[in-house]
Amino acid sequence: MQRIVVLAGGIGGARFLRGLMSAVPDADITVIGNTGDDIHLFGLKVCPDLDTVMYTLGGGIHEEQGWGRAGESFAVKEELAAYGVGPEWFGLGDRDFATHIVRTQMLAAGYPLSAVTEALCARWKPGVRLLPMSDDRIETHVLIDDSESGDGARKAVHFQEYWVRMRASVDAHAIIPVGAEQAKPAPGVLEAIAAADVVLFPPSNPVVSVGTILGVPGVREAVADAAAPVIGLSPIVGGAPVRGMADKVLAAVGVESTAAAVARHYGSGLLDGWLVDSVDAAAVAEVEEAGIRCRAVPLMMTDVEATAAMARAALALAEEVRA
Amino acid sequence: MQRIVVLAGGIGGARFLRGLMSAVPDADITVIGNTGDDIHLFGLKVCPDLDTVMYTLGGGIHEEQGWGRAGESFAVKEELAAYGVGPEWFGLGDRDFATHIVRTQMLAAGYPLSAVTEALCARWKPGVRLLPMSDDRIETHVLIDDSESGDGARKAVHFQEYWVRMRASVDAHAIIPVGAEQAKPAPGVLEAIAAADVVLFPPSNPVVSVGTILGVPGVREAVADAAAPVIGLSPIVGGAPVRGMADKVLAAVGVESTAAAVARHYGSGLLDGWLVDSVDAAAVAEVEEAGIRCRAVPLMMTDVEATAAMARAALALAEEVRA
Repeated sequence: MQRIVVLAGGIGGARFLRGLMSAVPDADITVIGNTGDDIHLFGLKVCPDLDTVMYTLGGGIHEEQGWGRAGESFAVKEELAAYGVGPEWFGLGDRDFATHIVRTQMLAAGYPLSAVTEALCARWKPGVRLLPMSDDRIETHVLIDDSESGDGARKAVHFQEYWVRMRASVDAHAIIPVGAEQAKPAPGVLEAIAAADVVLFPPSNPVVSVGTILGVPGVREAVADAAAPVIGLSPIVGGAPVRGMADKVLAAVGVESTAAAVARHYGSGLLDGWLVDSVDAAAVAEVEEAGIRCRAVPLMMTDVEATAAMARAALALAEEVRA
Repeated sequence: MQRIVVLAGGIGGARFLRGLMSAVPDADITVIGNTGDDIHLFGLKVCPDLDTVMYTLGGGIHEEQGWGRAGESFAVKEELAAYGVGPEWFGLGDRDFATHIVRTQMLAAGYPLSAVTEALCARWKPGVRLLPMSDDRIETHVLIDDSESGDGARKAVHFQEYWVRMRASVDAHAIIPVGAEQAKPAPGVLEAIAAADVVLFPPSNPVVSVGTILGVPGVREAVADAAAPVIGLSPIVGGAPVRGMADKVLAAVGVESTAAAVARHYGSGLLDGWLVDSVDAAAVAEVEEAGIRCRAVPLMMTDVEATAAMARAALALAEEVRA
């Protein structure tokens, strides 16, 4: 059985995983999920990326939206607002609240996040082994101009505040993974990478999703040292992010929003192969010059079949690298 | 302005208060609420009696049910059950959850329950000053037979488990207010009693509502020493509780379920006056023999007007006592 490790963010990662599972239903898939987006809201621990993967693969996702629960209601949030308790900009639904209540209770009882995630997945049966990148608290903060100070000062805001409340409408000067230096990979993370037949970077955000996972001490090294081919799929198509506002955080780390620039950002020390979209076929030569095997294929995850084709192309490129 | 202090449990206390406010809309009413029924569920602090008073007087109560919110939904609870997380027997609705989330957050931030209750009431504007009996944790437990042990052993269960889950279906051998000995009255409780023109015991449960409040060290003495007349209304009509299962907990403290027995249980050291229902007119002489002024009037809280008439009768009895 093929052992596949996927470093996944939220919506893009989850949708890619669904295609991958459709392409290789018998594979043994371990997902290392980004927890840098985690946030404490209303005294509850919210793990948006882990939940998006869990709900998507477990059949509970709001399909159109890509995050949150299908058939969701918002009575708790409305009531909290009536008490003047926010933030109102974060869309926590009633069904979703239950997940965070269970998680928070288990964490308070002393279980690490990895054990909590396993317990939640016992209900959702996502069909993959879902691991948080770390049991330690890591929070992605974004450095922006402090518009209220007026003297050129900057301030750091939580990633969710930047992404969800501000819709990345101002420039990000730096991405700061608070707590990362002291963090350890969750149990099983390094072992899964070492034992993998293939490591995949789905078209998730290269900075605040895959980049945050790679930033957990030991993970980047484990991926670089892995015996398995490491294959990535570009989240940038035709010079713009397929979804989300990846260009804003790429700019923060000095990377152009092009398929080739993202490949070079990961680098040949990490990546063995890279898929760009057919519209970016001209980038193939540039990526290969950087020492990364590259192919151009359709990279729009319009439906499960199109996404499965992307996954098959990634696995084929892995075989090519291996050969 | 007449200063009235009311020692209130949940549904009965709340409905009586609505009648009282209708009878004397200009009165300055302080409610000392029972917190012995409080319970931690799903990591959240739930105060059923305080909330019932707050929702009832604030216009948010589920009228027919007497507890919980009007227009309530149960998505969170259903989801928790899907995770296998209970108890399922406690009916926490989505709107209600928000109250407990706000309360738990404020308690975690270091605010005492009295300050939290004041903050919640800033939204509900109940028209009374609602004080918890204590900021300290007191939990009413009920001693019952341990049916699983089979050797005559007994066990203590949380009051809510006895009352809501078991519907008081087994005998209570004792009522144990865990934590009461170490507790202090909440700020303002003793001062309100001392400054009152009238102290009222509504037809709340004499053991697990009014009795629990009186059991907070200093409260019984403050009521006994109060300059104001102390007037109670019988929750027992025609030998049975008007609502709830007060007979079960009265038996646990060796008190018959009659209007006169409850008056003697409080005693002339506490009570100056006692109202029994018209059907219990024969009990008046017995109560007066015990040194408590007594009148028989209709005591069924069928609607606000009937309840207001009860409140007027209680205040008239207070005047009579005072004269």
